[in-house]
This record gives sequence, structure tokens and C-alpha cells, in this order.
Amino acid sequence: MTITRADGRTPDQLRPITIERGWSAQAEGSALISFGGTKVLCTASFTNGVPRWLTGQGKGWVTAEYAMLPRATNSRNDRESVKGRIGGRTHEISRLIGRALRAVVDTKALGENTIVIDCDVLQADGGTRTAAITGAFVALADAIEWGRQKKFIGQKAQVLRDSVAAVSVGVVDGAPLLDLAYVEDVRADTDMNVVVTGRGLFVEVQGTAEGAPFDKAELDALLELAVAGAAQLSAHQRAVLGEGA
Amino acid sequence: MTITRADGRTPDQLRPITIERGWSAQAEGSALISFGGTKVLCTASFTNGVPRWLTGQGKGWVTAEYAMLPRATNSRNDRESVKGRIGGRTHEISRLIGRALRAVVDTKALGENTIVIDCDVLQADGGTRTAAITGAFVALADAIEWGRQKKFIGQKAQVLRDSVAAVSVGVVDGAPLLDLAYVEDVRADTDMNVVVTGRGLFVEVQGTAEGAPFDKAELDALLELAVAGAAQLSAHQRAVLGEGA
Amino acid sequence: MTITRADGRTPDQLRPITIERGWSAQAEGSALISFGGTKVLCTASFTNGVPRWLTGQGKGWVTAEYAMLPRATNSRNDRESVKGRIGGRTHEISRLIGRALRAVVDTKALGENTIVIDCDVLQADGGTRTAAITGAFVALADAIEWGRQKKFIGQKAQVLRDSVAAVSVGVVDGAPLLDLAYVEDVRADTDMNVVVTGRGLFVEVQGTAEGAPFDKAELDALLELAVAGAAQLSAHQRAVLGEGA
Amino acid sequence: MTITRADGRTPDQLRPITIERGWSAQAEGSALISFGGTKVLCTASFTNGVPRWLTGQGKGWVTAEYAMLPRATNSRNDRESVKGRIGGRTHEISRLIGRALRAVVDTKALGENTIVIDCDVLQADGGTRTAAITGAFVALADAIEWGRQKKFIGQKAQVLRDSVAAVSVGVVDGAPLLDLAYVEDVRADTDMNVVVTGRGLFVEVQGTAEGAPFDKAELDALLELAVAGAAQLSAHQRAVLGEGA
Amino acid sequence: MTITRADGRTPDQLRPITIERGWSAQAEGSALISFGGTKVLCTASFTNGVPRWLTGQGKGWVTAEYAMLPRATNSRNDRESVKGRIGGRTHEISRLIGRALRAVVDTKALGENTIVIDCDVLQADGGTRTAAITGAFVALADAIEWGRQKKFIGQKAQVLRDSVAAVSVGVVDGAPLLDLAYVEDVRADTDMNVVVTGRGLFVEVQGTAEGAPFDKAELDALLELAVAGAAQLSAHQRAVLGEGA
Amino acid sequence: MTITRADGRTPDQLRPITIERGWSAQAEGSALISFGGTKVLCTASFTNGVPRWLTGQGKGWVTAEYAMLPRATNSRNDRESVKGRIGGRTHEISRLIGRALRAVVDTKALGENTIVIDCDVLQADGGTRTAAITGAFVALADAIEWGRQKKFIGQKAQVLRDSVAAVSVGVVDGAPLLDLAYVEDVRADTDMNVVVTGRGLFVEVQGTAEGAPFDKAELDALLELAVAGAAQLSAHQRAVLGEGA
Repeated sequence: MTITRADGRTPDQLRPITIERGWSAQAEGSALISFGGTKVLCTASFTNGVPRWLTGQGKGWVTAEYAMLPRATNSRNDRESVKGRIGGRTHEISRLIGRALRAVVDTKALGENTIVIDCDVLQADGGTRTAAITGAFVALADAIEWGRQKKFIGQKAQVLRDSVAAVSVGVVDGAPLLDLAYVEDVRADTDMNVVVTGRGLFVEVQGTAEGAPFDKAELDALLELAVAGAAQLSAHQRAVLGEGA
Repeated sequence: MTITRADGRTPDQLRPITIERGWSAQAEGSALISFGGTKVLCTASFTNGVPRWLTGQGKGWVTAEYAMLPRATNSRNDRESVKGRIGGRTHEISRLIGRALRAVVDTKALGENTIVIDCDVLQADGGTRTAAITGAFVALADAIEWGRQKKFIGQKAQVLRDSVAAVSVGVVDGAPLLDLAYVEDVRADTDMNVVVTGRGLFVEVQGTAEGAPFDKAELDALLELAVAGAAQLSAHQRAVLGEGA
Repeated sequence: MTITRADGRTPDQLRPITIERGWSAQAEGSALISFGGTKVLCTASFTNGVPRWLTGQGKGWVTAEYAMLPRATNSRNDRESVKGRIGGRTHEISRLIGRALRAVVDTKALGENTIVIDCDVLQADGGTRTAAITGAFVALADAIEWGRQKKFIGQKAQVLRDSVAAVSVGVVDGAPLLDLAYVEDVRADTDMNVVVTGRGLFVEVQGTAEGAPFDKAELDALLELAVAGAAQLSAHQRAVLGEGA
Repeated sequence: MTITRADGRTPDQLRPITIERGWSAQAEGSALISFGGTKVLCTASFTNGVPRWLTGQGKGWVTAEYAMLPRATNSRNDRESVKGRIGGRTHEISRLIGRALRAVVDTKALGENTIVIDCDVLQADGGTRTAAITGAFVALADAIEWGRQKKFIGQKAQVLRDSVAAVSVGVVDGAPLLDLAYVEDVRADTDMNVVVTGRGLFVEVQGTAEGAPFDKAELDALLELAVAGAAQLSAHQRAVLGEGA
Repeated sequence: MTITRADGRTPDQLRPITIERGWSAQAEGSALISFGGTKVLCTASFTNGVPRWLTGQGKGWVTAEYAMLPRATNSRNDRESVKGRIGGRTHEISRLIGRALRAVVDTKALGENTIVIDCDVLQADGGTRTAAITGAFVALADAIEWGRQKKFIGQKAQVLRDSVAAVSVGVVDGAPLLDLAYVEDVRADTDMNVVVTGRGLFVEVQGTAEGAPFDKAELDALLELAVAGAAQLSAHQRAVLGEGA
Repeated sequence: MTITRADGRTPDQLRPITIERGWSAQAEGSALISFGGTKVLCTASFTNGVPRWLTGQGKGWVTAEYAMLPRATNSRNDRESVKGRIGGRTHEISRLIGRALRAVVDTKALGENTIVIDCDVLQADGGTRTAAITGAFVALADAIEWGRQKKFIGQKAQVLRDSVAAVSVGVVDGAPLLDLAYVEDVRADTDMNVVVTGRGLFVEVQGTAEGAPFDKAELDALLELAVAGAAQLSAHQRAVLGEGA
């Protein structure tokens, strides 16, 4: 059977990926990443010192915030700042990104430093959280290097244990597909976001039956697609970050 | 190897489960569920009619809200009503419960009716979200019956496609364990919540590496434990709801 | 004239009262109290130390928060955490409970310790604030004992000067009634909440003309009923707390 | 025994009372009232029509809001608009004023009209809530007359059943005192606010033991003082409003 | 051509100005100012010390908050405290007043003291922000004197470099007018608020085309009117403050 | 005298200006504009219909919202959505952009359509509000064309009366400078933002003395610079929009 995807991809094909490392002139690390029509600006802000609740433990802190510009999507959404509260989806994705990054950071090696990652979706076409994680890692790596050059981090400290990337997979019309675009995402029966390290281990597996519940075989097929896709994203990250990464 | 769990359970053993169906004299459906020391009051509020955005489509709506009493936990947390905003964790769990229940509801068969499920944690000892989902299903089933008796739902409408229950699993000191109590949860390397239907299909799989990332073999071991545990919970639900369920 | 109340009580009769002392496994003191269909979970959280504004004065602090589960009542109310603000009624009752408890506490004897009482209405059928005060006292007494055993409070310190309980009274169809159930409360012309100590002194008298204004004779009749009812509640508290109280 | 009050008053003496009727050029009714150093601007805003939840019942609606300017008191308080939430005390007093006014209004006679009373404390020296109620009645009466002249209210409709005024009383150093100034209020053992109609009936009795609990005899002494004081305030209101009131 | 203004003024004539210095018995400085029907109560609260972010720099801080009573205007506006957020207009005017006052204050000479100015509009008829600035200066001057007498400010410190006042101007039906009343303001094509020091220098020029854009000649005509009007207001301030000012 | 600016510009020279028209694939109109290091993404969202309060008047509505990404600036700012409230500066600039655009729109010709402009600062280096206005006009023009092609706007309707652009000017070290970069802005004695139409008329003039107050001669010098700078920006806009604009 040949699946024809709307944009002509094969089921196991990623959309065109671009990563503009160092997009921001202000942040200690940054990347403008695109997964097809999805564009996310990721910045990493490095601060020497940690929040009060962590002081004196010799450990650093990495956290993340995700947001979407009001007209990133096809119709305009009210700003969360105007509504005066952050929605559940925003909270959930911010937490996911933070967990994903912390999974590859040795906070002891980071020392008492704080890195805040901001992932702002400038344009959305499916997969914004996975693009955000993938781009955030690049920004994070550069912020860590900045901290090393400024001597806030030891010269030999191995802060990053591994790299991390994420990709979405889903079952659309019975077929497992990699890296869903928005038109595919809304039609998916099962939707899964998978966060994988550069070594191919899982950091997070979040699968949801949007339509019919799924069985173990479907889960396995999706995970296999995801691991292969994440490996390509990891390669992209390595290419962008170069030798040192 | 013999694992000794703090409360003497075997790795694949649930805590004592109790479900007090109809605990509330006010709600159309209710259940006070306990998974060991975790106690959650689940109520289902039935309203004839749907929110404006759904009107006229011949479909119903099921949603859920989760919250914790301030002293459900070992030390007191400020009330979210006092803080003036709902935290990310609360939002995330509320959304999870809603999705889990909607996965087994035929909203066409429900008709233009709304059911709001409230899951309030009276006492917390790990697994509050999984207890909430498991108890919420009982409250939901009774609210649907109430609606049927009041003729808001057709007498033969098959609103529930299946039952749904949830359980946590995790890797603690290298061993996969079922239904983590709080003391186990904080030490888990990998933490997973799995939502399973009565027929044994997955509705939601959420696995997170709290410590080291995990591989496919660990994932499989955890899922196997979860499916077996969920089957027992489904049996509890059937026992409590009786023949009709 | 014989008044027939909906539930068959005489005008000066309380509803069945139950107090489950120590309901919570987490809190330093707790009680699940019921006045008929009204059920309130009261927990007392003990913390060594006081808020900054009270530091160094050698005095303790007792405060209270009242809230209702969304489906405690006959129809569901939106959560105050979701609305993002606490309503006037909630504020008013929280303040009332705090004042009532502080009236019998010797804060010097308590020492620099803080006790926060949470009163969460699980089911509401009139008199939630009076049940809350009556149950809160039991939770408070146990939390004070806990502090004594932990040596945060002097062994001979007389922290409680007296006990405190509360009851509602009202004029319904011209007749003064004790401990109004919800169906009576909505029809009352005058509605009064009275907080009384174990020795029979007033801590708070709050009478409101919901219909026609009232005169001194009515006020006196209501107070007499309230004092007698409160004495019975004080006896319940003593029975539950035992000798030491 | 002769009590010497800080400002030379006898125990049963009110502070100097002034009521500037029609202070505002904008509102349909208004009064700038002073009880000694306490100054409250009361405005009544008349709107033809009622809130949606009351539509079609042939009844009107009267409500009130109380607030204090940030520097009404001896030291500055943050604005509630800046804090983003209204405090419990503000809520409580707003509700009290609304209940007091509604107690003398025949909402059927008012017809489907809404009157919102705003009581803004420009300067505070004790008794702000009682001054607010007393001034609010004057503003209300004028707004009703305005509505009658504009034909929104029937020419013969008897909207006001009675007048209403309020005064504080308290026990200071063992002596019952009328109309407490701030320096007396902070030293009072028992503090009571009493709302009384022009005919001498009670609308609201709110007594609180700030220090030692009180007995029936003290309560009676305070109520007697309050009724006499309120009668003088009612006379002031009549003098200001003239014949028609 | 003779312009006839609704209130009979000539184009370059201010409305009647009154300044009641020391209106408040509580604040360290205060003024009730009226520009015709616009009445603003300005209070200045002096605190020894500065906010944490300014500590140790030997400089003081002056800030301002502006607000309107709900029925200051012709129809009632909801309170910002009730809405839970401050509107853009309120924010904007508060910031303007603060900047205007700081422009004439030598914060070094003020020393580590804070002055908060509150400008509350009791009645509004156009020009509330300009009346607020003009009255706020009087309150500020008195608060500085208070601080000097309390020895928080050096006896010879020259805290005020100049006085400051503000006035509105606008083009109505093609004619430049000084000090717009509300009925003129709503019809103005161009609306300008000008803040001028006692020496005639500009602190702030804010001109907005409400209708057609304006050219340099119109701008110049308006500025000339404003400078002349501000000079009269400065004279009023000097008259009220007396010699020392 | 030769002024040497940090980036080598002459006093009357703009920074390099770029306008990427149609940057967003989602919005009806969009532009990514840069004034040197300041980059603002402007999107225009077109909706057929108007807010309820404007319905039936045959007029359209144009409004704007301004915001800054948290790390647009040199150090990170907390998100306004996280703080739960919009700051005064954000409000003020949003209102300014809206007024500037409405000044050149014939809302009758627009018909009952709404255009919301979002200006999100991706990177900030001074002049964000003036870049926002200048870019917003381009997005607005394209959204109007989109509405015309979709037949929501009449084919011959002359919706735009003129173009509009904005630029900052200021006095730094005694010298009037055009288009201040951040390092210049913080050192400016006088800071002015000027909004000018394509025909060279003023829409808004906002000048503030940050240091010493300024006189008429300085004001005139600054306005002259601003008008010349705005003319260049208008030319850029015309070049980007092409013939039809």
C-alpha cells in the first residue's frame, strides 16, 4: 500500500528541518527552528545563581516556558497575557519541555546557575512542542558554552549527558505516520509525542487515543517510527552544533 | 530476587481498593474511591443541554476537573483559589481525566447533555490521578443512568462503549512496580501512568524518565504490569456497578 | 401550637451530629463533622514558626480557610480556583471561623507556632459555617496536643481557654427554629449564626433580617435557642475529645 | 463612674454628624456623610432595567460596593485594583451595605430598575461601614425620586418601606460606648455593628468578641445604646431629606 | 470670529480653579483640586526608606497612582478592583503623573525617602489628568516639608527644582481652546496634554489627532495656549503654597 | 560640531530598515520589520464582522496589541501571561499603535469588518514602538487588500486615507538625534516619539523630558528631524507595498 501524504512525504519522512543557530543577538543561546511550516524561536537565558529554594545545594536549574503568538495559527487566539491566565495546554507543554531538557543535564556539573529556555511559536503547523524541544536543546547547549567561557561553569564539567530531540507520530487512516503536519494531526486516531536522547533512549512517551483506543502493536509501530525520526533530528542538532556537541 | 515493598506488597500487587458508589446525596453520580491511603471523591453533574459552542450538533459533552484539598498531602499547600490561578499540574491532570472518559463515551448517543466530573483528592498517597480516573468512571456511569431515567438519554442508547480505569507503574531501584505509593513515587526512575479500557486497549500512555532515560524493554515490562493491574481495577468497577455496567 | 419540621424535628432539636475525629492520616488534627446532610472535613495544619509580621512577639497564629466542593450543593458551582477569585461569601465565612477559634486560644501560650484550619464542605445542607466551626475546634484541639507532644508547646501551657461551637437559628413562618436545614434556611425571615463557648458566653452573634426586620423579643428568643443548642454541641465535642479536653 | 472619652464625648454620644446631600453633580443620588473624622462619599446610580438573571420578574435590584481610598487611613494601603483582588473585609462590608438597603426596599414597587450604591471612604476614623449605610440611604432615596420623576417608577409606588441607619457600639475598658472612633475601636473587647430601621427594628446585628467573650447582659446594654444612637441618625436623615422622606 | 464656549469662556480662559490644601487629616500632604466640575483628591504619603531595588544609592523615589471613583463620570464604570485588572488608560495616566513630578524633584536631595502620590478623581468633567498633576504638586510640596520637619530630609536640601502644572488644549471646530471640559473634549479634532514647569519649560507634550492629523502651525498654536494656561496654574500653586514654595 | 554615534550614523540618519512583507503564512497581512537590531513581527488578522458594541453602525474596527518576547531584551523579563497582568508600558504602546493606525483608516469604507494587528517584538534595541507602527501599516494594508479580494470590502472603497509611520528622536548630550538605538535612548535627556502620515501631518507627538525640561527650540529641532525621518520610512513602505499603496 502506498500512502500519499498531503505534502507528498512518505510515512516515515520528516518535513524539511532548518535550525538557525544564534538567531538572537541578545540571548546566551538561541535557535530558530522550523519543522516545515512550524517555526519556533528558542532562546536560552543564562543567570549565575539559582532560585532561593535551591541555594546552597551546589546544583543548577533548567526550566522552560512555551507560548504561541496570537496569530501563529490559522485563526487568531486571544493572548494569555490579556486573558490574565495561562491555559492548560501551555502549562502542559512548558512542563514537558523542561522535563525533556533536564533529563540530559547533570545539574551538579552545571553548578549554581540557572538556564531559562523560552520557546515562542512564531508560526504553527503541527508539532510545535516537538520542534520546541529539538530547538531548545541547541539553545541550551550554546548557553552552557557561554557559561563555560564566562567561567560560571567549570572548564571540564560534563553538563550535558546526552542530546535530546522530539518528534510526533500518529495513526491517520490506519497508517502510522512520522512528524504530523496540522492537517494530519486533526485527523489522527492516535497521537504520540516521543522525546528521545541522542543515544536512542526514551525520555518521554506520551500517547493518546484521540479516536479509538490502540493496542500494543500500534504502539510499537509508532515508537519505531519515532525513534528513527528522532535519530535524524539528533543528527541535525549535531551538524548544527559541530564538533564540540 | 525478592523485592520488599514498604507496605509488604509484591511488585505486581495493587494496594487495597475500595469504591463507595453513591457517596454523595447531591450529585447524579458519585464515588469515593481509595487506592490505599489515596482517597478521591468523584462526583458527576448531569445537565441537560450543552455549551453554546456545541449546540445543535446532536452531541454531548463530558469534561473533568481535578483538585486537591490543601491538606491532602503531608504538608499543606496553598489553595489555588487563594493564589488566584490553577497550577500546571492541576490543569494537566484535569485534561487527562477528561480525555480518558471521553475515550469511552459515544457523545452522539449521549445526546445534547453535559456531564461534568469533579475529582477532589481528600487524601493523597500517590496515584491520585489514576484513582481519580478509575472512580470517575463509576460516577459517570451512574450519571448516565440518571439521565436515562430522566429521559434525557434514549432508553436504548449505548452511551458507554467500554469502561476505563488507570494505574501507575514505575521503575524503583531497577524493579518495575505496580501502583506506586508516594514513598515509591518519589524514588522512581521512570514513572508511567497508563489508562486502559475494560477490553484491555490503551487510551493513554504517559511515561517519563525522572532519573535515567529508559529503553524499549523497560517500557514493555511496565506496560505489561499496567495492563494486568488495570484489568483488576476494571473488575472492581464491574463488581461495584453490577450487571448493567 | 405544634410546628412540624420537614425532617420531623422539634423546633429546638439539632439534626443528628457525628464527629469523626482523626479522619485524615496526614493532618496534625482533623475531624469529619456532619450536621444532618451537611458534611465538613476540618483539618488543622501545625507549623513551628509564625508569619514574618508576627515574628519575635512570642505569640502564635491561628487562621482558617473555608471552601465548598463544586458539587457539595444541589447544583454545581464553578470552582473559585477556576474563576480565579474567591467570592465574598467564602471570604466572610473564612474570617468568621478564624475569629471564632482565636477567641478561645491564648496565643501567648501557643508560642510562636501557626495553626491553619481548613474547612472543606463535602456536602451542603444548611449550616455549613456552624458545622465548620464546631468541627474545626476538634481539629484545633488535636493539633495543639500534637504540638505539645512534639515539644513545640510547653507541657503545661494552657493554650485553650475554653471550647467553642456554633449553631444557626432562624425564624421560619413565625417560629424560631434551631439548626436550620437548607429547605428551612431559604424560607427564613431572620437568620442568625451564633458562636458560643463551652461556658456559654458569646463569641459572635450575627443576625440578619432576610425578610421583615425583627424586634428585641425575637432576637432574645433566637439567642435562647442558640445557647441551648450550642451547649449540646459542646457536650458532643467533649465526648469526642475525652478527658483531656 | 464617669467615662472620659478621648474626644470628650459621653458614652452615649454620637460624633458630629454631617450629611451633604447631592454632593455629586453626576449621580442620580449622592451624599457626602461624616461621622467625626470619617468621611464617606455615597453615590447611587440608577439604571432602567435589571441584570439578566432577574429579567421578567417585575422586580428591581439594589446592590452596593464599598471601598477605601489608599490613604484614607493613617498609613497607606495598597489599592485593591493594583493587587488585582478584593480583600475579605471589603467584600464583607459591601455585602452588609447591600443587605441593609434591600431590607427597606420593596423591589416590586421599584420595578425593573437597578440601583447601584457606591460608598467610597475618603477619610477613615472608625465606623466607616455604619457611616456608609447611613449615607447610602440618603443617596438611595434621592435616586428613587429621580427614577420617579423620569417615570421609570410609578408615581404612587411606595418603594421605601422604612428608612435605615447604622451605628457601631462596643465595650471599651468595661464600658459600653456609642459610635467608636478608631482609637476606641482598636481597644474594644466587644465590637458590634447594628443596622436599625427608622421604626426601631433590627435589620442586622453583628457582634464580635475581640477580647473576652461577652454575656447576655453586655449584649443587651450595647443594643440599647445602638438603638438610641440609630434613632438620632434616622432623625438626621429625615432632616436632610425633608418632608417627602 | 468669536467662539462661544458652552460655559461662556473665551478660548484662552481656564475654568474656575480651586485648591483646598491639606484636605486630608491623614496624609503628609494633600490637596482637593477642582478645574470646574472636575474634582481630584491628591494625597502624598511619605515613607522613610526606599524600595529594595533602590536601597543604598542615596536617592529617593516618587511615584503616583491615578484612579477614578466608579460614579465620577456621567454613567457608572465598573471598579477596576472588581474587574481584577487595571485598564490601559489608568496605567497610562498614573505613569504620566509620576514622570511629571519626578521631573522637578532632585531625588538625591530627597534622600532615601519614598513619596507615593494618590490622585483619585471624585468627579470628572474633562482634564482629570491635568488637574491631578497640578494638585499632586501641592500635595508633594507639603509632604516634602513634612519630611523636612521630621528630619528625614536635610534642612537645606533643595528637593524641588521647580514647580509643575499641566493643562489640556485642543482644536474644536477649528479653534484652539484651553482647558477642555468634557463636552469639548469629545468633539476635539486634536487633543493635547501639556506639562509645564513654573519656569515655563516643557516636561511632557502629548498631542493626538482624534480626527484629522494636524500640522506644525496648529501644534504651535496649541502649545502657546498651553504655556499661558500653565503659567496661571503655577501662580495658583504659588498662592496656595505661600512664600516657601 | 561632529557628533559620533556609537554605530557611526550621522545625527539625522536612520538605522538600516528592512521590511519582509508577507512573512507569515497564516495571517491576512504581515511584515517582519527591522530598525537596526530591533525586529518586530506584525500580523494583521481580518475578521468579517465587528464587536457587538459596534454592530449595525456600518463601521469597521481596527485595534492593536503590542508585546515583547521575554528574551527580546538584554536580560530576560518575566512573561506578562505568567504574571497574570499586562504592564502599563505594554498597555500604553498597544493603545498608541491602535490610535496611529485608526488615524489613517476610513472605518466607514472598511465596512463592518475587524482588523486586529499584533506587534510582537522578537528582538529589542530601541524604537520598538515606532518600528511596530511602521510595520503594522504594511500588514494592515495587505489585510485590507485581502478583504477586498474576498469581497468583504467594496472594490472601490478608499479605506486608507494616507499611510502612517513613526520614528523616535531625542536629545543626547545636547544633540538632537534621529531613531535612537537602546544605548542612546537610555542616555537621552528628552525622548520623543512622533507618528507622521505619508503626507507629512502629525498623528501623535509624545515628548518627555527624561532629564532636564526642554524648551520650544529643542522641540522644534526634534520635530524637524522626525518629519524628515518619517518621510524616509514612508518611502520604504511605498517601495515594499508597490503601486497600489
